[in-house]
Amino acid sequence: MAKYVYMFEEGNAKMRELLGGKGANLCEMTGLGLPVPRGFVVTTEACTRYYQDGEKIAGDIEKEIFEQLANLEKKTGKTLGDKGAPLLVSVRSGSRASMPGMMDTVLNLGLNDEVVAGLVVLTENERFAFDSYRRFITMFSDVVMEISKAHFDKAFDAVKEENGAHLDTDLTADNLKEVVKRFKAIYREHKSADFPQDPREQLFEAVKAVFRSWNNNRAITYRRLNDIPSDWGTAVNIQEMVYGNMGDDSGTGVAFTRDPSTGENKLYGEFLMNAQGEDVVAGIRTPQSLEQLNSVNPQVYDEFVGYARKLEDHYKDMQDMEFTIEKGKLFMLQTRNGKRTAQAALKIAVDFVREGVVSEEDAILMVDPRQLDALLHPNFEPKALAAAKPVAKGLPASPGAASGKIYFEAKDAVDAHKGGEELVILVREETSPEDIEGMSVAQGILTSRGGMTSHAAVVARGMGTCCVAGCSEVTIDEASKTLTDKNGKKYAEGDYISLDGSTGNVYDGRIATVDAELTGDFEVFISWTDKVRQLRVRTNADTPHDAETAIKFGAEGIGLCRTEHMFFEEDRIAAMREMIVSKTEEQRRRALEKILPMQRKDFEGIFVAMDGKPVTIRLLDPPLHEFLPQADGDIASIAKELNMENDELRSVIRSLHEINPMLGNRGCRLAIIFPEIPEVQTRAIIEAAVNVGKKGVKVLPEIMIPLIGDIKEFVYVKNTVKETAAKVLKELGAELDYLVGTMIEIPRACLTADEIASEAEFFSFGTNDLTQMAYGLSRDDAGKILDTYFDKNIYEFDPTARIDTRGVGKLMEMAVKLGREARADIHLGICGEHGGDPSSVEFCHYAGLDYVSCSPFRVPIARLAAAQAAIKDKSGVKVIHG
Amino acid sequence: MAKYVYMFEEGNAKMRELLGGKGANLCEMTGLGLPVPRGFVVTTEACTRYYQDGEKIAGDIEKEIFEQLANLEKKTGKTLGDKGAPLLVSVRSGSRASMPGMMDTVLNLGLNDEVVAGLVVLTENERFAFDSYRRFITMFSDVVMEISKAHFDKAFDAVKEENGAHLDTDLTADNLKEVVKRFKAIYREHKSADFPQDPREQLFEAVKAVFRSWNNNRAITYRRLNDIPSDWGTAVNIQEMVYGNMGDDSGTGVAFTRDPSTGENKLYGEFLMNAQGEDVVAGIRTPQSLEQLNSVNPQVYDEFVGYARKLEDHYKDMQDMEFTIEKGKLFMLQTRNGKRTAQAALKIAVDFVREGVVSEEDAILMVDPRQLDALLHPNFEPKALAAAKPVAKGLPASPGAASGKIYFEAKDAVDAHKGGEELVILVREETSPEDIEGMSVAQGILTSRGGMTSHAAVVARGMGTCCVAGCSEVTIDEASKTLTDKNGKKYAEGDYISLDGSTGNVYDGRIATVDAELTGDFEVFISWTDKVRQLRVRTNADTPHDAETAIKFGAEGIGLCRTEHMFFEEDRIAAMREMIVSKTEEQRRRALEKILPMQRKDFEGIFVAMDGKPVTIRLLDPPLHEFLPQADGDIASIAKELNMENDELRSVIRSLHEINPMLGNRGCRLAIIFPEIPEVQTRAIIEAAVNVGKKGVKVLPEIMIPLIGDIKEFVYVKNTVKETAAKVLKELGAELDYLVGTMIEIPRACLTADEIASEAEFFSFGTNDLTQMAYGLSRDDAGKILDTYFDKNIYEFDPTARIDTRGVGKLMEMAVKLGREARADIHLGICGEHGGDPSSVEFCHYAGLDYVSCSPFRVPIARLAAAQAAIKDKSGVKVIHG
Repeated sequence: MAKYVYMFEEGNAKMRELLGGKGANLCEMTGLGLPVPRGFVVTTEACTRYYQDGEKIAGDIEKEIFEQLANLEKKTGKTLGDKGAPLLVSVRSGSRASMPGMMDTVLNLGLNDEVVAGLVVLTENERFAFDSYRRFITMFSDVVMEISKAHFDKAFDAVKEENGAHLDTDLTADNLKEVVKRFKAIYREHKSADFPQDPREQLFEAVKAVFRSWNNNRAITYRRLNDIPSDWGTAVNIQEMVYGNMGDDSGTGVAFTRDPSTGENKLYGEFLMNAQGEDVVAGIRTPQSLEQLNSVNPQVYDEFVGYARKLEDHYKDMQDMEFTIEKGKLFMLQTRNGKRTAQAALKIAVDFVREGVVSEEDAILMVDPRQLDALLHPNFEPKALAAAKPVAKGLPASPGAASGKIYFEAKDAVDAHKGGEELVILVREETSPEDIEGMSVAQGILTSRGGMTSHAAVVARGMGTCCVAGCSEVTIDEASKTLTDKNGKKYAEGDYISLDGSTGNVYDGRIATVDAELTGDFEVFISWTDKVRQLRVRTNADTPHDAETAIKFGAEGIGLCRTEHMFFEEDRIAAMREMIVSKTEEQRRRALEKILPMQRKDFEGIFVAMDGKPVTIRLLDPPLHEFLPQADGDIASIAKELNMENDELRSVIRSLHEINPMLGNRGCRLAIIFPEIPEVQTRAIIEAAVNVGKKGVKVLPEIMIPLIGDIKEFVYVKNTVKETAAKVLKELGAELDYLVGTMIEIPRACLTADEIASEAEFFSFGTNDLTQMAYGLSRDDAGKILDTYFDKNIYEFDPTARIDTRGVGKLMEMAVKLGREARADIHLGICGEHGGDPSSVEFCHYAGLDYVSCSPFRVPIARLAAAQAAIKDKSGVKVIHG
Repeated sequence: MAKYVYMFEEGNAKMRELLGGKGANLCEMTGLGLPVPRGFVVTTEACTRYYQDGEKIAGDIEKEIFEQLANLEKKTGKTLGDKGAPLLVSVRSGSRASMPGMMDTVLNLGLNDEVVAGLVVLTENERFAFDSYRRFITMFSDVVMEISKAHFDKAFDAVKEENGAHLDTDLTADNLKEVVKRFKAIYREHKSADFPQDPREQLFEAVKAVFRSWNNNRAITYRRLNDIPSDWGTAVNIQEMVYGNMGDDSGTGVAFTRDPSTGENKLYGEFLMNAQGEDVVAGIRTPQSLEQLNSVNPQVYDEFVGYARKLEDHYKDMQDMEFTIEKGKLFMLQTRNGKRTAQAALKIAVDFVREGVVSEEDAILMVDPRQLDALLHPNFEPKALAAAKPVAKGLPASPGAASGKIYFEAKDAVDAHKGGEELVILVREETSPEDIEGMSVAQGILTSRGGMTSHAAVVARGMGTCCVAGCSEVTIDEASKTLTDKNGKKYAEGDYISLDGSTGNVYDGRIATVDAELTGDFEVFISWTDKVRQLRVRTNADTPHDAETAIKFGAEGIGLCRTEHMFFEEDRIAAMREMIVSKTEEQRRRALEKILPMQRKDFEGIFVAMDGKPVTIRLLDPPLHEFLPQADGDIASIAKELNMENDELRSVIRSLHEINPMLGNRGCRLAIIFPEIPEVQTRAIIEAAVNVGKKGVKVLPEIMIPLIGDIKEFVYVKNTVKETAAKVLKELGAELDYLVGTMIEIPRACLTADEIASEAEFFSFGTNDLTQMAYGLSRDDAGKILDTYFDKNIYEFDPTARIDTRGVGKLMEMAVKLGREARADIHLGICGEHGGDPSSVEFCHYAGLDYVSCSPFRVPIARLAAAQAAIKDKSGVKVIHG
């Protein structure tokens, strides 16, 4: 039979899944002989049972709770509700993963009208007793009974005002008695019942409230943002109270074994004498730094320093501890691995290895890959940021921080930049490929529509530019060139705003930024990852500049070079448009002839930058209408340029209109309808490879055909590529090794991967489209749906940001299996946005891919994630969340 | 080692796959002792090898061909190319399935300048010899060497004119010598070589040409339209020539053992004396009816009648035969199961059972399910049709024929109908749900955009209304209300056109139509199918009227009742629009309250019509913007109606705009964002069921939640449904059994079908959307892509019309397996358009579904297809084409 409640003496740190992080660590500290107030833990499995049983605590669990309570009473010699020797407890949540601030806590439980009277006698401190009681009533009413805390705060302030009290501490015991009286009235008013006087009822209700809080909105959101499954549940810690507010020989504090900002190896913390934990947080009195405890109570200080050292040695990680001094006696209330900045994480990991505490592999597991982002991009100056208040929040689409003047059209942004303006922010309802030049000059990009894989988000991440996308809290009026924030404030062209692409926050005005700085620790640390990972890491790069950035970050090749991005630049789009509006193959070839030398030059640049590393080039992919103008003015000027009537051009644009362009004429479909396009692109690739090859540059082009759903599509385009390549090589009298493969981004391609692999030399999973099609959900239209789905706990994560292993992952595994069966040495990679997401990289490791490819700035993240996956795999820990 | 060439004596009718239909039957007749000119067959496997070997006939096959030629020479005592005893042969294609007129034929092969001289001596008929030679040169040049026949026809006509010849037969032997001379010159001009004089080379080239012709455009199109896989290949029949043009004692003819138009049991045919087959076809001389042969040559007539009887008895099917009489001797050149009209097919099948020739099950296999369509819809009067010439061709989207006056807007059509106009044809670029009323009054619908599953096509099939969709050969200008056909002729409102929804043809003016008439044979025949099929057949019906039609055709329930169609009617759409533009839940509930009684009434009508049969009702599915107007005028009038500013309404419409609506906010996503919608719909369903139940009508509602991709979506909506239903039943003090299940139409639903089945009581495959998402291809945008894909032989069939078993089918099979594992008694059906397609029905049988659901007019087709699948399954024949 399952055991649902554990005394602290019965558990240890390894029982984290069952006891939650906090509970397991309390047990561990108890086992280590540290002074921990006694208590017990109700397990996470009890929480899971609670939900299975229809939000009820089953009889067997209830019985066990009260058995262990009796045990606790025996050990402490105190009894819950006993006036003479009352046991008072705290009730705290504690889940498997650290979820700070996410769950609710009740202190001083066990007080009632009788017990408080006993406490007065026992402590000879009436003020303390009633202060504890009023705190308990507030917390219990708020957390357990869901009566808003505001009611109690208001009543409390009224009593203070009536008595001319400035600080809480100015209130007398009698004042506090009055407070308690009024609080009980508030309770009665809201609940039509008296405040519960039975401490056992109080306890039981509090446990239920902790279980309930597992599914409050804050918890759901935190889990989603941190990849925590909803079926883990939370444990409940019930622990004897100790008090830091019993006089000047009492106090409370928090401390880290190393500096969480810098990683410096130095005890770091603060404390307040004669105070409870919540007073430290409230910030009315300024806490003292931990060193000062040495003068206040050197014995306790030495004792604490010893414990801190012991805990760090024991856990082999930087610890974040809470302690309380009750009448000169030190109690340890919590320890856990401390949160830290990215810089600190790296320094601590590297120092731990230098100090011989952990191995390189263990150190690799100590750093969260997602943290690395912060190291690679500019950030706001922390103090300036702390003073700023967001005026809207969108999706954190591309990390980093930016302050600048807003422009509403790409060309305005470009003009401003040409005019010397460095601080440009591009603001658009949504971006389109036409905006690419404006995006490239911007420090930051803000859109009001689109999701994490919208055009703005994808392109910004590729460029390493800060981007807040899908910010529906602002209204953007492109016509009148105004932005309105959630408070109704309007911003015109040239006004300053600031964007935090790591949080999605938008700020009014300028905020100082600090540049990213890669320390020596970064280089040391990241080089370790390469020793253990099995996945290669490539990059998605469309220009020599991107390729160079990626190489700097450790990219081992290009996994996706999108050829269309080369055609949105001002001097090239004319030829592209000419091609699109062509009515005959001959006209189209003439336009393509103009494009050929530009494309060849692009490839030469990229091949040189990647010297010898493989380069996967995708043939033209997007629907042609993306290259054509929409606005009347643009149509007129382009019609003139192309020597057409306006109406004629309009009619071409209309004929290219599609109801669902995502499912329309793009990818290999273009290549099949207009075989001259892959012909010219192949010629450009092969000529470029031969040209730079003559200069001694090694080239391994991999030509990738997009949007394949059927083997015959692939064979048709492959034949065009092969025939053209053979012809060009013959003309040039050269030889060249190259591969021809395909994107796997259509569900049917996964289902028929054996057929496709019989012809394709490599697969690259295009998980953006694969996810959209497997879910039937367009990334451009998903915003409102995802918001609701997160609110209603239907999706736990955004499948466009993280691979859905249960559905999309199944398709990928099927394709890997079928593909390898048909061609044992097939190259397998991923070039969707997921290639830079740590949990998706982990999935790719287990799925047996050869490489992941991601935007240049994500390369280090992917390297670390790949290394962590390999280490976990080796140790038999397979953690893939559904 | 494979054998690639068979003498007629070596084969039989069972070897159809290897020898092709024609070849196998020639062998069979030879075996039966009928007088068949001797010959041999090159197998379909040789054709497959030809393509595998890169369009080359391998040495081993070449060797075998000439070995069997030697054999034939030995048997006939004649030799190819021997002047003294020349062997002349015909070379004909013959694939596994009958493909009449699809493949090309060469006659008189073996003639050259020398042999023709020998033939003159041998036959003592110079005219005959040179006539044969000129015919051979024409056919060989045309079919084998791809020199257009027009060149030869022109030269032939010139000689006729120069010599004042009216008929071909007016030409003398010398004239024909001149013709041969000129023909050889034409050949030389085009090929820069002399006409091949080596008969063995002629033979070898002819065989290759037959193989090549397997992939000519006509063949590809025919295969696609008739579900014939491209990898079957064709056989080649090489047969000694016999001549019906050797004098008045010679002749040629064709005959059917029963009347192919009516099915009457009576030998039916025609013949011409002193003629070759092509003369019969050319129609210059009027053939005589077969009975007249009795007076021309009673002995041959009796002999032929005997053979015909023998063949029908032997094949147990109506035979279509070709024969030639050479100098008074009868030769049988071909026999095959005859093509017949739908009426004839039914009569023959029923008669055969009555005559004790075949069993009911065998008779079921004799009728092509697709033929039944013609019986259920009006058709053009055949003679009137024969005289008409199409002015454009679109997709045969919904069968039947219609003549009428054209209207360009739904409301114009409705007004005309109200004004007493019966013959209304609605002409639109594409239809939208707003057009539903106009569509319902129309006799026929013509659109210039959209595919086989476009809105127009789907709705028309549901209504049983003739529809030609995606007719890009016409230009429709809705603004100026004109239609322009492919010849440039303009039609204005009120002008007559005629549509053939079974062929896609559009005609100028009126063509007389004849109504469908269901004969007694139909009832007898279709009742047999119910005894053997395992699949139940339901219907997709949204109105009591549709439901009644379907019941008449044998539907056993409703598999899909779309609730949204009920809201496009004039008096209801206002409430629907009010709901959509609502800003608060309260407003929305108020609008829904108006909708409730209407919806309840609809359901009551349908429940009564379906008395006791299960009714699957799908909750609201389409994107809301479909209900809102687009045109400025409509916006103004609706804004007024809704008491809104124009701009406000416009802004709502804009906010509902989606880039890819197919992948947007619809289906269960609507129900999750606005739970009040499924609440009201559930209330309407339950109240309706209870109301009619009180009147003694049995009701089994199955509530279907669309577009599920994740189990949590399903649970969320299911909870809304269940809670509402419980509440309503409590209010009404009633009890009711009902099911809650889901559409399976998103790939991810198939991949996670086990999870979904743990909560869903039934699955209904929505193969329209499943196909679109599995292929990444929108049905609305697929037109141009499919055209190119068919032209380039990339797709062999339209996956929106027929289930793609290799991809989509795999997903379905996965869902069936996972679903049944999780819930053994789960109901499984299909309600996509594929439910009425015979080959898809067959797939559903083998996939183990419980039922198919299709539009009312397709119910008999589905019943027959299901019966055929069950019979084939029982006999171990599993024919699912990839």
